Amino acid sequence: MKFNIALLAGDGIGPEVINEAVKVSDAIAKKFNHEITWTPALTGACAIDAVGVPYPDETHEICMKADAVLFGAIGHPKYDNDPSAPVRPEQGLLLMRKKLGLFANVRPTFTFPSLIDNSPLKRERIEGTDLVFLRELTGGIYFGEKGRRDDGETAFDNCVYTRAEVQRLAKKGFELAMTRSKKLCCVDKANVLETSRLWRETVQAMEKDYPEVTVSYEFVDAVAMRLVQWPNSYDVLITENLFGDILTDEASVISGSMGLMPSASVGEHTSLYEPIHGSYPQATGLNIANPLATILSAAMMFEDAFGLKAEAEAIRAVVNKSLEQGVVTEDLAPKGSKTYKTSEVGDWLVANL
Amino acid sequence: MKFNIALLAGDGIGPEVINEAVKVSDAIAKKFNHEITWTPALTGACAIDAVGVPYPDETHEICMKADAVLFGAIGHPKYDNDPSAPVRPEQGLLLMRKKLGLFANVRPTFTFPSLIDNSPLKRERIEGTDLVFLRELTGGIYFGEKGRRDDGETAFDNCVYTRAEVQRLAKKGFELAMTRSKKLCCVDKANVLETSRLWRETVQAMEKDYPEVTVSYEFVDAVAMRLVQWPNSYDVLITENLFGDILTDEASVISGSMGLMPSASVGEHTSLYEPIHGSYPQATGLNIANPLATILSAAMMFEDAFGLKAEAEAIRAVVNKSLEQGVVTEDLAPKGSKTYKTSEVGDWLVANL
Ligand SMILES: CC(C)[C@H](C(=O)O)[C@@H](O)C(=O)O
Ligand SMILES: CC(C)[C@H](C(=O)O)[C@@H](O)C(=O)O
Repeated sequence: MKFNIALLAGDGIGPEVINEAVKVSDAIAKKFNHEITWTPALTGACAIDAVGVPYPDETHEICMKADAVLFGAIGHPKYDNDPSAPVRPEQGLLLMRKKLGLFANVRPTFTFPSLIDNSPLKRERIEGTDLVFLRELTGGIYFGEKGRRDDGETAFDNCVYTRAEVQRLAKKGFELAMTRSKKLCCVDKANVLETSRLWRETVQAMEKDYPEVTVSYEFVDAVAMRLVQWPNSYDVLITENLFGDILTDEASVISGSMGLMPSASVGEHTSLYEPIHGSYPQATGLNIANPLATILSAAMMFEDAFGLKAEAEAIRAVVNKSLEQGVVTEDLAPKGSKTYKTSEVGDWLVANL
Repeated sequence: MKFNIALLAGDGIGPEVINEAVKVSDAIAKKFNHEITWTPALTGACAIDAVGVPYPDETHEICMKADAVLFGAIGHPKYDNDPSAPVRPEQGLLLMRKKLGLFANVRPTFTFPSLIDNSPLKRERIEGTDLVFLRELTGGIYFGEKGRRDDGETAFDNCVYTRAEVQRLAKKGFELAMTRSKKLCCVDKANVLETSRLWRETVQAMEKDYPEVTVSYEFVDAVAMRLVQWPNSYDVLITENLFGDILTDEASVISGSMGLMPSASVGEHTSLYEPIHGSYPQATGLNIANPLATILSAAMMFEDAFGLKAEAEAIRAVVNKSLEQGVVTEDLAPKGSKTYKTSEVGDWLVANL
């Protein structure tokens, strides 16, 4: 098969981890007789520096024409402490999500047996954890009207959801639950928010179409607790944009595999695959960032965007092997043991495919 | 001294845990020669059942006249799964916060040496954890305009903050930091939300008035991660209402002392003291709920509302003693060891004061 993949490396460590994902993807393609054309495009702070906007039209065109988008990370500290910066890298990310119609962000959290003792949580709390968040990604407070009043003394952000937006996300949640343990948790704050009450009533009304799925409804604050206490009690969770942002980050560290979690964003046009970690500015250019989350995102891309399960499994298998054999970047290496550079991990994976 | 305390037991296990806090407070009062008058008042689901509203005017009058309010918990499952219920217990809680002007919710998270191994987190991750959240409690998305449009198909919740609201909360944060390690973390989502940018710029402008305080600015998703990874890297954290709701609940379980964390809400009128746990409906009437969070909230009340440090210390000391001697409810007891009923824990504390 032939694929055209848009390559959005972004900022910080983005280019470094993307590099390794490209290496591994190319090796897989060769092995399975596929042909990949990579089309690089600018996004984030580097796009602002180059052309003044964080998601240029040209980048969007490239993404729309591609079979998939592989994304690194964006963000730069020079924007973070300047609340009044007129253009911000994150605007590019949000615009990209909106224009590509990426309304569902799929974020799994699972454990790697060989890494379980890296977790801040105790082994018995996390063993067997294998959950997936479906985070709504193009609505809510991220995209509602926002601004200032009263000469800048009052700020507001509006959170808005329509029933149709909830339905299309929840539908993906029910469908995913059907392929797994048939347990779905709807996370909201229905005791306070009207948008949450719309979420809850919409999901309740859909229950009858999926009689085999057991649905629970939990408040976001309770989930923030239980994720730490008993992560393995969850399976598929659906939630709105901002709650999803907070909870998926929280979930990513409990697995013991921080820096390893991949994600997919799917919707109306081309799907996008990216690590859930950020641009990690302090590590930029040091060749120390962990490339595995990006490489595992490429595996998700092979499986979900191209329907190539064997290719995906081959990537996952070699990643597992590298973990078992301790071919890991410094974030995963036990004290005193040998560590590998970002590019060395990629090389090893290619050599061992 | 003489005190008049409004007693709002609320729903679920509220009355049971409040009972024990009253016992212990009365014993302390006797020992130190104070006189407490308790004035019970209705709030929550039980108030709806009795008089049709969750925070009756009469209750508000009682709170306004009191020297402090001791609060149990509110909430009842019959309202949670009915998104369209016209009156809800939580409305009472929010109305109470608003009418009493309780704009700052003080939520400490600390570890008890004897309970550290109860934590889902590893000992080395949490040892020394001693942090305090100051959560804004009367603004933000909780209190902004909310409702439906388009025949109920669209829901919205508006998040609004004024600079003055941020300033008064941040001022308490800076002041608290000055009495502790002089480290303040402002938690926001300034890369996406306009209200967060107002928070960040307001706190930045206040830095010059507290030159000794080191301020850091972190995104809420990053804090949700780092709270699990390195809780002991934080000291004082300030944040808006909804982020505070989620993060303080998350923080409460990492300490290894879930169910033990007290809180205070302070502002323009009478201050209020309450456990951070909820109404725990499944345990209602079983005399098994842990009363310590409420008893420690009473200790906060003695210290902060009445300026009685020795009395507060005496309560904390006897609580510590009960933990060390294993006089604990079933949630804290190691498997197979003796457990005590809610009322037995209270009796033991009174006998050992
Ligand atoms: C960078 C930021 C705007 C983004 C978000 O909040 O969605 C990030 O945290 C994420 O989760 O992808
Ligand atoms: C019951 C609910 C409305 C409340 C809140 O969200 O503030 C509770 O979770 C809390 O933290 O006190």
